[in-house]
Amino acid sequence: MTYIEELCAAACGAAQKLAYSDAETKNKMLESIASAIEKNADEILRANKIDVENCPADKAAFLDRLTLDEKRIAAMAEGVRAVARIDDPVGKITAEWYTGKGLKITKVRAPIGVAAVIYEARPNVTADAAALCLKSGNACVLRGGKEAINTNKIIYGIMKNALAGNNFEDGALQFIDKTDRSYAAELLKMSDYVDVVIPRGGEALKRFVLDNAKIPVIASAGGICHVYVEKTADLKMASDIIFNAKTSRPSVCNAAETLLVDADIAEKFLPSCLARLSGAGVEIRGDEATVKLFPKAVRAVDYDTEYEALILAVKVVKDCAEAIEHINRHNTKHSDAVVTNSDFVKEIFAKSVDAAAVYINASTRFTDGFEFGFGAEMAISTQKLHARGPIGLEALTSEKYVIYGEGHIR
Amino acid sequence: MTYIEELCAAACGAAQKLAYSDAETKNKMLESIASAIEKNADEILRANKIDVENCPADKAAFLDRLTLDEKRIAAMAEGVRAVARIDDPVGKITAEWYTGKGLKITKVRAPIGVAAVIYEARPNVTADAAALCLKSGNACVLRGGKEAINTNKIIYGIMKNALAGNNFEDGALQFIDKTDRSYAAELLKMSDYVDVVIPRGGEALKRFVLDNAKIPVIASAGGICHVYVEKTADLKMASDIIFNAKTSRPSVCNAAETLLVDADIAEKFLPSCLARLSGAGVEIRGDEATVKLFPKAVRAVDYDTEYEALILAVKVVKDCAEAIEHINRHNTKHSDAVVTNSDFVKEIFAKSVDAAAVYINASTRFTDGFEFGFGAEMAISTQKLHARGPIGLEALTSEKYVIYGEGHIR
Repeated sequence: MTYIEELCAAACGAAQKLAYSDAETKNKMLESIASAIEKNADEILRANKIDVENCPADKAAFLDRLTLDEKRIAAMAEGVRAVARIDDPVGKITAEWYTGKGLKITKVRAPIGVAAVIYEARPNVTADAAALCLKSGNACVLRGGKEAINTNKIIYGIMKNALAGNNFEDGALQFIDKTDRSYAAELLKMSDYVDVVIPRGGEALKRFVLDNAKIPVIASAGGICHVYVEKTADLKMASDIIFNAKTSRPSVCNAAETLLVDADIAEKFLPSCLARLSGAGVEIRGDEATVKLFPKAVRAVDYDTEYEALILAVKVVKDCAEAIEHINRHNTKHSDAVVTNSDFVKEIFAKSVDAAAVYINASTRFTDGFEFGFGAEMAISTQKLHARGPIGLEALTSEKYVIYGEGHIR
Repeated sequence: MTYIEELCAAACGAAQKLAYSDAETKNKMLESIASAIEKNADEILRANKIDVENCPADKAAFLDRLTLDEKRIAAMAEGVRAVARIDDPVGKITAEWYTGKGLKITKVRAPIGVAAVIYEARPNVTADAAALCLKSGNACVLRGGKEAINTNKIIYGIMKNALAGNNFEDGALQFIDKTDRSYAAELLKMSDYVDVVIPRGGEALKRFVLDNAKIPVIASAGGICHVYVEKTADLKMASDIIFNAKTSRPSVCNAAETLLVDADIAEKFLPSCLARLSGAGVEIRGDEATVKLFPKAVRAVDYDTEYEALILAVKVVKDCAEAIEHINRHNTKHSDAVVTNSDFVKEIFAKSVDAAAVYINASTRFTDGFEFGFGAEMAISTQKLHARGPIGLEALTSEKYVIYGEGHIR
């Protein structure tokens, strides 16, 4: 067995035991991890100092996300406890019926088994991902980025020792302490042991995982999110929503990149709305109609770029049908919003826009595990199978059928 | 655009229109297809005759499945109508809550989009798959096996004309009329247009799809299904269940391949149970303990083969824990049964056995879309993500979030 095979096989064995652990046991596992992280904060800080010193100058953008202090370590432990407080989805019956022959069929939430989590930069993901996997009854194989390798290794060791020291199933946590990509590539082939792989990072990581995985993937794309202002909209509300969606945190995936406006109201709406955005430092890029109404707008426009910056693409559309067509052509199936007072438009937009989250009269910025009330999230799925949107504990389970008979034969 | 790109792009465009078709419209689409199949039975029979004549001698096993007659064509039309009668899952709200900030979050069933179905042999799948996809609001790209190409082409043409002739969205049905594998391989890369690929056929087809797909797959493995007779079992019931699971239709995936028996009751149970199976023509292959109790059993035993024949592997186990460990090592995550009167064993078996369907005191043979009450099935999923077990209409949908605010910003 190779190093990777050994880790994965160990996780697989532990997963079978975790599958019948009750919520109380799993919560105790998490509490032991949280306490151990707190107790060993100094050790984590020492390891983190090495990673920070090693951080190359061209990765300065990562530096803030990489650097830990006592407050961040306390927040990491608190994050693990927050997961412990979330309801355990395992064992929940999601459907139940009797067949014509009297068989009782129940559909029950069960752990997926072994989850591989491949992540970048922020070392708190080591604790987050472990907590989410354990609480949902899954063993995990963690593989963090090389920038945080020393910090990740120490956090992992502390968690593992906490489980082992309290006689919990410590095989449920595995960590790949080699950062060469070939190990990650090998991990992606371990379909005999690993049931799902979740990449958590940038577009390049996602591509690498999708191109190499022989295991089902739960992937997220970046967010090219739209706000469409329909002609019946409350224009004050519309202005507030696009302002919030674009400016409140432009670097995140649920920020808006494109504003679509019905031609009927463009003249009334765009000049003041765009002036407000422009006043907040937003660069406006628009089509011909937009530039006519707001001459400060740049004519060059690209509807397929996730700017992650104070740049907004604007387009005037004929009607709702054109808006929906535009959105379905250019969105990344993440989050799109309409501002409208028409019930017909609400319905057609909700049904037709192909996205994980469709907003009616609200900002796209709400697509987030905490905002949804999931307590925490592993990532935000933009694929359509298994789970869309914020990946909380439920998305980390599968549903199996448990069927009760009294000697039924067919 | 290549031939395959054109088909897939057309399906993608049609999918967006189908997404907001109501159940009544979709049912009318299916009725138009069913009538057209009936009306054009002669044409289908003529095409089928060519396929039957072309069927090579070494594919004689397929011949029965390939050959159509008037009765089978009537059944095909009736199958389409049966799908029309199933409840439309699209638009169903599966969860609904308010967040702390008063946003109303609803989780709503929506079509997946475009499904590619790659299938073998039986031409009725052309109509079945089309009906299931349309009713669940999905456009589909069908790719049948070369043995049935003439029949498939005609059935497809009839369905397509029926939709077009009644002014329905005929782009929702696409068919690849070229049987060279390179076209199927290209289809598996169409991630810009196709949302899911479902292979329906043997192990080789599944392997080909999993190895080449850049699109999420819903796959099924064969079934190595187990019946475990625990020491508290009603032995008459146990004998009936294994007899049914092994002999009622040995060639199908939900038939049992392996019998596990607790050592405590082996002496009492095995001789008569195995004599009954042997009397029905079943070849018994067992471990040492089995051969001791039933000398007619062959000593050579292999727990990793799906026999699809009247052959049964038997093993005497120490206890429930050993049985579960054996099952999780050798099963294909399809269907496994326990016969027991112990509530503890029922619970531990249901929680620990990793399979799409876990049976308590019932035969594994019930894993089937019709038996489950789904009306029809696309295949039986043995993967753990998205959908396990019989793939009915619900498994052909995804769930998206539709979020209602009143100007909510974050």
